[in-house]
Amino acid sequence: MNFYDQLKFNSEGLIPAIVQEQSTGRVLMMAWMNRASLEKTLESGRTHFWSRSRQKFWMKGESSGHVQQVKDVAFDCDGDTLLIQVEQSGPACHEGFKSCFFRSSSDGGRTFRVTEPQLETPEQMYGKK
Amino acid sequence: MNFYDQLKFNSEGLIPAIVQEQSTGRVLMMAWMNRASLEKTLESGRTHFWSRSRQKFWMKGESSGHVQQVKDVAFDCDGDTLLIQVEQSGPACHEGFKSCFFRSSSDGGRTFRVTEPQLETPEQMYGKK
Repeated sequence: MNFYDQLKFNSEGLIPAIVQEQSTGRVLMMAWMNRASLEKTLESGRTHFWSRSRQKFWMKGESSGHVQQVKDVAFDCDGDTLLIQVEQSGPACHEGFKSCFFRSSSDGGRTFRVTEPQLETPEQMYGKK
Repeated sequence: MNFYDQLKFNSEGLIPAIVQEQSTGRVLMMAWMNRASLEKTLESGRTHFWSRSRQKFWMKGESSGHVQQVKDVAFDCDGDTLLIQVEQSGPACHEGFKSCFFRSSSDGGRTFRVTEPQLETPEQMYGKK
């Protein structure tokens, strides 16, 4: 059976993709893919997504150079979520952190804190606007 | 600033929650939460979700006993995805695997394979139907 036959895209033709750094297990980000961005991801070995806010096909790292090299693509029991193992070049987050999940609460939501260093500033990544 | 003020629920009042096993880094599942299930998760220390297909509030493990003890709740740069660290009792997947992401492709989608052992059968977990 074909890989794509296992997958269910939602009513907008999208599927959420969790991106994990294979070497460390760190979850880096979650973004959405349509069929074309998944095909391009599998074919090129670099992650491509669909931006819902910008209604635009994009490659991770196209502006920052911080691309993701794909190692493995898993899908869940319901076929409606992807888990992609990558090697990440530089910070994954557009705010300059390794992971987009750089803030968390471990006291039941009473407080939260930044849990990792900012590796670069957005200005360093994208230039001054 | 309040934890909840950082979060953006979608037009259906939901936010996707990635669940990761803290001790191993294994991503176990992705499910959706509404505000009530997130509050219950933070208050009780056990994960609660909102089932879109059943339109129902549920606690992970309510039928199987395979509950998730919450260790940390992170949110991403856009505030529209959660990453929850847990200790998982038994398999997380209703098909009896540790992780719902038990199938993957590492050859660009040409083939996929089961990557972990099935720990229990659904019959063992839920009884014969």
